[in-house]
Amino acid sequence: MGEAPLCDETTAVFAPRGERGEIEEGLTLSPKFDQDGLIPAIAADADSGDVLMLAYMNEEALALTIATGEAHYWSRSRSEIWRKGATSGNTQKIVDLRIDCDQDAILMKVTQRGSGASCHLGFKSCFFRAIPTGAAPSADLKLEYREHDKAFDPAEVYGKSTD
Amino acid sequence: MGEAPLCDETTAVFAPRGERGEIEEGLTLSPKFDQDGLIPAIAADADSGDVLMLAYMNEEALALTIATGEAHYWSRSRSEIWRKGATSGNTQKIVDLRIDCDQDAILMKVTQRGSGASCHLGFKSCFFRAIPTGAAPSADLKLEYREHDKAFDPAEVYGKSTD
Repeated sequence: MGEAPLCDETTAVFAPRGERGEIEEGLTLSPKFDQDGLIPAIAADADSGDVLMLAYMNEEALALTIATGEAHYWSRSRSEIWRKGATSGNTQKIVDLRIDCDQDAILMKVTQRGSGASCHLGFKSCFFRAIPTGAAPSADLKLEYREHDKAFDPAEVYGKSTD
Repeated sequence: MGEAPLCDETTAVFAPRGERGEIEEGLTLSPKFDQDGLIPAIAADADSGDVLMLAYMNEEALALTIATGEAHYWSRSRSEIWRKGATSGNTQKIVDLRIDCDQDAILMKVTQRGSGASCHLGFKSCFFRAIPTGAAPSADLKLEYREHDKAFDPAEVYGKSTD
């Protein structure tokens, strides 16, 4: 008999993708990661419902989020696991973690801790600007601010990192 | 002097990506489309704040959404522009259209028309199942339903298309 392998590399964290009915309406978690190994994850304020940000998770970040109840992402710019708020203190405590019908998107209802801001620029939501509608986009189009006050000064919180 | 070109192929719908400060805090719309020409777009209920779905737009879908005030997506499965609700009647009227700090994600606050459901399975939100947290994911993990009643019967609305 051979020795047991020290590490079973065939053990996946999540179930493999099954047939469509199970993915869409079953109880098995089998998230779909894209060609870069990522799944988009939305963070929304659990109280107000406001969408705060959209970022990406890899398998490890999703597993850490599930295990710890704290939002973890994969930083595409830094190529590393990113525990939200590790630098800024603006952590995101999971209140309810959701996955969508085809299991290729994550929604986190969170309590935004720290300053209450999720955006690295200091705004509560990363979606602080609006696009005017009702006319085809042209060179004259100007975004409109929907938030005007920052909860913190990024220069005081960060070096050059974004968090 | 040469003739004017019949069609100026250099005319982009949106402004080119400028420097970081302008992208993040300026008033110029310069969305970033990924290697497949897509940008993720979140639809949230304008009244309740509930996140309804996440899908993707290409340049044309975003331009149509801006021009018409109705949500348009790019269907990755059908490789075509997808006016949400064209089949089901469950259209999404834009109340407020947002873009995030680095302009690589869209948020639409919408009024969900028709049955009030956005999910092709008949649920109000595509995020109708929750992932339990507090323990590392294992084979025993079971998703939990957060919505139990469908607003419509997909078999009555669709053939095999999803909308």
